Amino acid sequence: MGGADATQAVRSGAAGAEAGQGAQATKRVGVVGASGILGGELLRLLLGDPGLEIEYVSAQSKAGRPATELNPHLKDAGLGDFEAFDAASAAKRCDVVFVATPPETAGRAVPELLDAGAELVIDLSPAYRLRDPERHREWYPDVERDQELAEQAVYGLPELNRAALADARVIAMPGCFATAILLAALPLREIDGITYDAIAVDGKSGSTGSGARLRESGAHTWRANVVAPYAPRGHRHVPEVRQALGEHGVASNGSPPRLGMSTYGVDLVRGLSVGLYSFFEGELDERTLRRAYHRTYRDEHFVRVQVGRGSALPLPDPKAVVGSNFCDVAAFVDQSVGRFVLIAAIDNLVKGGSGQALQACNVALGFPERQGLEALPVFPV
Amino acid sequence: MGGADATQAVRSGAAGAEAGQGAQATKRVGVVGASGILGGELLRLLLGDPGLEIEYVSAQSKAGRPATELNPHLKDAGLGDFEAFDAASAAKRCDVVFVATPPETAGRAVPELLDAGAELVIDLSPAYRLRDPERHREWYPDVERDQELAEQAVYGLPELNRAALADARVIAMPGCFATAILLAALPLREIDGITYDAIAVDGKSGSTGSGARLRESGAHTWRANVVAPYAPRGHRHVPEVRQALGEHGVASNGSPPRLGMSTYGVDLVRGLSVGLYSFFEGELDERTLRRAYHRTYRDEHFVRVQVGRGSALPLPDPKAVVGSNFCDVAAFVDQSVGRFVLIAAIDNLVKGGSGQALQACNVALGFPERQGLEALPVFPV
Amino acid sequence: MGGADATQAVRSGAAGAEAGQGAQATKRVGVVGASGILGGELLRLLLGDPGLEIEYVSAQSKAGRPATELNPHLKDAGLGDFEAFDAASAAKRCDVVFVATPPETAGRAVPELLDAGAELVIDLSPAYRLRDPERHREWYPDVERDQELAEQAVYGLPELNRAALADARVIAMPGCFATAILLAALPLREIDGITYDAIAVDGKSGSTGSGARLRESGAHTWRANVVAPYAPRGHRHVPEVRQALGEHGVASNGSPPRLGMSTYGVDLVRGLSVGLYSFFEGELDERTLRRAYHRTYRDEHFVRVQVGRGSALPLPDPKAVVGSNFCDVAAFVDQSVGRFVLIAAIDNLVKGGSGQALQACNVALGFPERQGLEALPVFPV
Amino acid sequence: MGGADATQAVRSGAAGAEAGQGAQATKRVGVVGASGILGGELLRLLLGDPGLEIEYVSAQSKAGRPATELNPHLKDAGLGDFEAFDAASAAKRCDVVFVATPPETAGRAVPELLDAGAELVIDLSPAYRLRDPERHREWYPDVERDQELAEQAVYGLPELNRAALADARVIAMPGCFATAILLAALPLREIDGITYDAIAVDGKSGSTGSGARLRESGAHTWRANVVAPYAPRGHRHVPEVRQALGEHGVASNGSPPRLGMSTYGVDLVRGLSVGLYSFFEGELDERTLRRAYHRTYRDEHFVRVQVGRGSALPLPDPKAVVGSNFCDVAAFVDQSVGRFVLIAAIDNLVKGGSGQALQACNVALGFPERQGLEALPVFPV
Repeated sequence: MGGADATQAVRSGAAGAEAGQGAQATKRVGVVGASGILGGELLRLLLGDPGLEIEYVSAQSKAGRPATELNPHLKDAGLGDFEAFDAASAAKRCDVVFVATPPETAGRAVPELLDAGAELVIDLSPAYRLRDPERHREWYPDVERDQELAEQAVYGLPELNRAALADARVIAMPGCFATAILLAALPLREIDGITYDAIAVDGKSGSTGSGARLRESGAHTWRANVVAPYAPRGHRHVPEVRQALGEHGVASNGSPPRLGMSTYGVDLVRGLSVGLYSFFEGELDERTLRRAYHRTYRDEHFVRVQVGRGSALPLPDPKAVVGSNFCDVAAFVDQSVGRFVLIAAIDNLVKGGSGQALQACNVALGFPERQGLEALPVFPV
Repeated sequence: MGGADATQAVRSGAAGAEAGQGAQATKRVGVVGASGILGGELLRLLLGDPGLEIEYVSAQSKAGRPATELNPHLKDAGLGDFEAFDAASAAKRCDVVFVATPPETAGRAVPELLDAGAELVIDLSPAYRLRDPERHREWYPDVERDQELAEQAVYGLPELNRAALADARVIAMPGCFATAILLAALPLREIDGITYDAIAVDGKSGSTGSGARLRESGAHTWRANVVAPYAPRGHRHVPEVRQALGEHGVASNGSPPRLGMSTYGVDLVRGLSVGLYSFFEGELDERTLRRAYHRTYRDEHFVRVQVGRGSALPLPDPKAVVGSNFCDVAAFVDQSVGRFVLIAAIDNLVKGGSGQALQACNVALGFPERQGLEALPVFPV
Repeated sequence: MGGADATQAVRSGAAGAEAGQGAQATKRVGVVGASGILGGELLRLLLGDPGLEIEYVSAQSKAGRPATELNPHLKDAGLGDFEAFDAASAAKRCDVVFVATPPETAGRAVPELLDAGAELVIDLSPAYRLRDPERHREWYPDVERDQELAEQAVYGLPELNRAALADARVIAMPGCFATAILLAALPLREIDGITYDAIAVDGKSGSTGSGARLRESGAHTWRANVVAPYAPRGHRHVPEVRQALGEHGVASNGSPPRLGMSTYGVDLVRGLSVGLYSFFEGELDERTLRRAYHRTYRDEHFVRVQVGRGSALPLPDPKAVVGSNFCDVAAFVDQSVGRFVLIAAIDNLVKGGSGQALQACNVALGFPERQGLEALPVFPV
Repeated sequence: MGGADATQAVRSGAAGAEAGQGAQATKRVGVVGASGILGGELLRLLLGDPGLEIEYVSAQSKAGRPATELNPHLKDAGLGDFEAFDAASAAKRCDVVFVATPPETAGRAVPELLDAGAELVIDLSPAYRLRDPERHREWYPDVERDQELAEQAVYGLPELNRAALADARVIAMPGCFATAILLAALPLREIDGITYDAIAVDGKSGSTGSGARLRESGAHTWRANVVAPYAPRGHRHVPEVRQALGEHGVASNGSPPRLGMSTYGVDLVRGLSVGLYSFFEGELDERTLRRAYHRTYRDEHFVRVQVGRGSALPLPDPKAVVGSNFCDVAAFVDQSVGRFVLIAAIDNLVKGGSGQALQACNVALGFPERQGLEALPVFPV
């Protein structure tokens, strides 16, 4: 495909940037499953990334069709036609391969790519997220995968697993909701003096959270102006959150809290918000809670702690992060009943998907972590 | 004002209906504070109500201006100009007076109307909802009111207080969120064998929930495409919910649950959804829980229990109740962690406001409860 | 099916209304193609209509499935399951049959129903709109129909064809855009002293204008936040507008104007707006133009002439007619270049579809024209 | 203010880019009127621009308040507080000053800045767009300005006036609608063999097109779900379009066409679309028309000619250009009546405002025209 050439053309304006990066050479990357929504977003980000060069773009069901067919915004950006998936070709031509297919496909594609010699595979699907094979079977009964790889895969939340990413061969990117929940909950590690045994999570998502598959419930006529409950008993991102909370020591009195989650579709295309609610025993003031957030995220560029003052949109809102890799978080205490409230908002396609995959890729390659991810939010949209 | 005459003209098509009601005479009603959003909605409903006749429409700040100025949809419906508020005139001309002003005004207007001889005053504001004077001062410090009336006022949720409404002189209509939460929670009275000590509530509201006052955060540019947290530590409808749950015996092990609530603005004009989440000890299966809902609402026309099957919008969603007085509810059990999930959706201006006020009025007057409220939801919008 | 019984239950509150209509008996109606969006809207309106009784509801592809499956808002309204289409049964059980199928089906269903003895068939599809067989073949090449019936069919715009409707056996309901354009243009008949040889029409439509068929371009992810041109060279409602303008004498200097139309999808579910722009020679002041509108629509309940004053939504806007059968129109003169501007807005599913079908039905049956159509717009939505 | 320092911090990731630009030094810029919507967008773009350094940010009514107060998306981006406007300080500290105030303020601020020694002032308001003083008084009666400067000012549409921009001291940036209309109409210069005497323009705009001033009609409750006509008799961007068409030779048979425009608010925050409709005499096929577009824009990076194939959003739609400086255009011929249709879509805040101002600035400074404007559209939003 013409991806490489075209990309060079597109990047002529950024040529200086590349030259200016000093000794760091650009890496060649491939995107498998590029006709989906996360795939399209990845192409957008890669076309603007001075450190990565698009070399390979495949989409099994659209092979031979122009990559702009589902990505009208990328018109004239230099993309060619989708290729059919070929593990050997991808592995040979690319330094890094991103897999943005459904998990049923990714479960097989990841080992095929590694067997064909790929050095680094970054899987955006849930195929390799759950280490425990029973848990995996419970939540993804139709997803066959290589269990050994699942145990090696690094869970790609850089704020949590930065060190481990450096040596990764397979990175299993977190789900969009899981990213927001984990970044909201992580500072709880620093809170002492209270006990809480359960956290209720309420998640709200835009329509891109459901992927590109056609469904009646996804038609504009049905999907606009809704607050549509789905997965009320529990969303499939719950087990990966439990796994990560357990591994990273978010616990009250030594045991991880019960975690339950219910989700809603709201009238957004892009964006996601989570609220975490927990009733506690003991004493906790809001200032103490917030300090834990500031401490945890002091050096994290992509996590912004909101304090609810000085702006017309003073709290985490997906509207204020559109197109960017930021995760906005805030924390409150409702003293009347002993309840803490944690809120996080992200762009589900960037920090909740393709942007975070680039961030993890940068860490794994030893690139500056923010490279290709400097875009400020487009606001208001 | 020309309301009465005009209304007659408007109702010529419904004249047969009135005649057909048998002996029941129509009652004359007034709307105080008719320039607000709830006031406009009340006018719409009253214009279509065969049992009630609009006799008096006031709006202090818009006196002398046409009532359609803020109600373009009511063009040519026969409304005249807004009057200035005059308690004596309203009391004399009307059988029932609805007060749809801000609570600061309603606190004084309600006793003035009664003193002037009004037989029934229905207050849509929060001025008379909280019986306990301390609680009232805590949440509404700027709202002066007549404490004695506050103790007599009937909380106007017909599904809860039908009997008491028959003798009411003052009806304090519930808040929009409170209506949805209480209808979601009420069947818990019938659940045995579990203990739960807290309920977390997550509320999502359209922009009409914030009234008509101009604010930057309410401008379309800022308010569209949001999931905007507000009142994260607790919404002011919480104390009235606690009061009603306590009075009506929703309790676990004899004590009312802790209740915490956080709310969000979503990109809806009209509509509201609440999720209630509670972790329990003991055994509860979903079928048992649902039976409690079906039993509680078997004879309630306006509460529809959803079971999540057989439709593209199978669960409570404000989209499926637009313009109607329905409250849709559903209940689930997440067995993985012992959590129950209760969801309710209403049109905040109808069942959460003006429609429920008509329903309470019908009960108080001995009219058929559904009179004027038969409209099916307009769908899809 | 249980429609009749159920409907009786639903209508118990309206029983007085029926009794009050004097001698007028209710008529039994059927809806063929009730699983589409216009079909669902027709069911909603019929359930609230005191003069018509639902007796038959069919949907070929959904036969045996509950009618609420695609109509969640009608839950508990007493509808049973969809039947398979059977012309004999429909004709026998119903006084009036509405056909809300795609035109390919309607082309055949209409004569079948008449052959089976139906007295009145009201076709919401475009199958019988264009009298001229060549024009029909040009715009609807796949729609076979009975040409003789096409010549008998009455074009069902009551404001244009009231007299002819009284004797109709087949009523061909206008397209949604055609309704708005014709009501905007009709008063031009009364304008003298200018010549104009062309009218450019710009149409904007919500997503329900495209029907219920699943398409990528109709997915919320793609369809939200658009101004999406479609049919830029000419919309298929153009020929029926030309036919009606010609037959009803809208002409400049004796010859009908050239008419060109381009259409856009906008981010609305329900609603439609048209702008008609024409450059003229001669003298025309706005007051004269508006007088023509007031004269034309003085006695038309469903057409409201807007003059752009005294309201926050002072001009025709689909937002101000949601759920109602109103068509709002306004007319302006741009003196700087000799241009007149006509604007009309409707709810495409009511005045642009199912509501107007009821209106035409009422006229044909000799019922009060507004019966079942008294609902005021739900505003704001 | 801390803008400069902060910006350096923010730009550390782009340092290589700056270094890589060869000898080109960055220029220091100021933004006057930075609390408005165009001002905020300008700050966003400047923060990502490797060639320009923010040195001065003023907002008279918000002086002393943090610049992020109205720009929540720019949190932590290194902006300080707004300064009060001071022409001398701005002129001294900056190489280029952007004026993004209302025109009443800009009319005076532009000459003050030049008098104080500013080398280049770029005015985003309409104060200096209309050269003819009578035309200016007619459309902007409240805007006092320096008429001499108005005659020197270069109309800042780079695709039209690239050469003149090189020597500009004052650049008057086009209105958002004017930009789209002119880019749609410009290729008509290359069309022979037809005559057309008038063009009707229909414009659709998101809510950011109306600026940040609070108004009832701009509240979400009122502004969502509309197709709201405004300025039906003619929009104030019409005279600048006429001026530019006249100066640049878009004419039929030697005389410029009559141009009339009507505009609508649609439910978009960001984005704008225009349709131009004209009936012609003579022969024109679509292929010929499109060739003129391809020829005109072959070398224009920011204008993309759409041909309506191969994508789910195949025609110019504001959705496909969000956050980018692209203008998408398409042209059609409706042979049935001899009508051509030109459609253009832009992001009103970027190509219709702040982005185009940067583009013009780049041309004036001799910088690469695309510098700081490489961002691809964020899609889908």
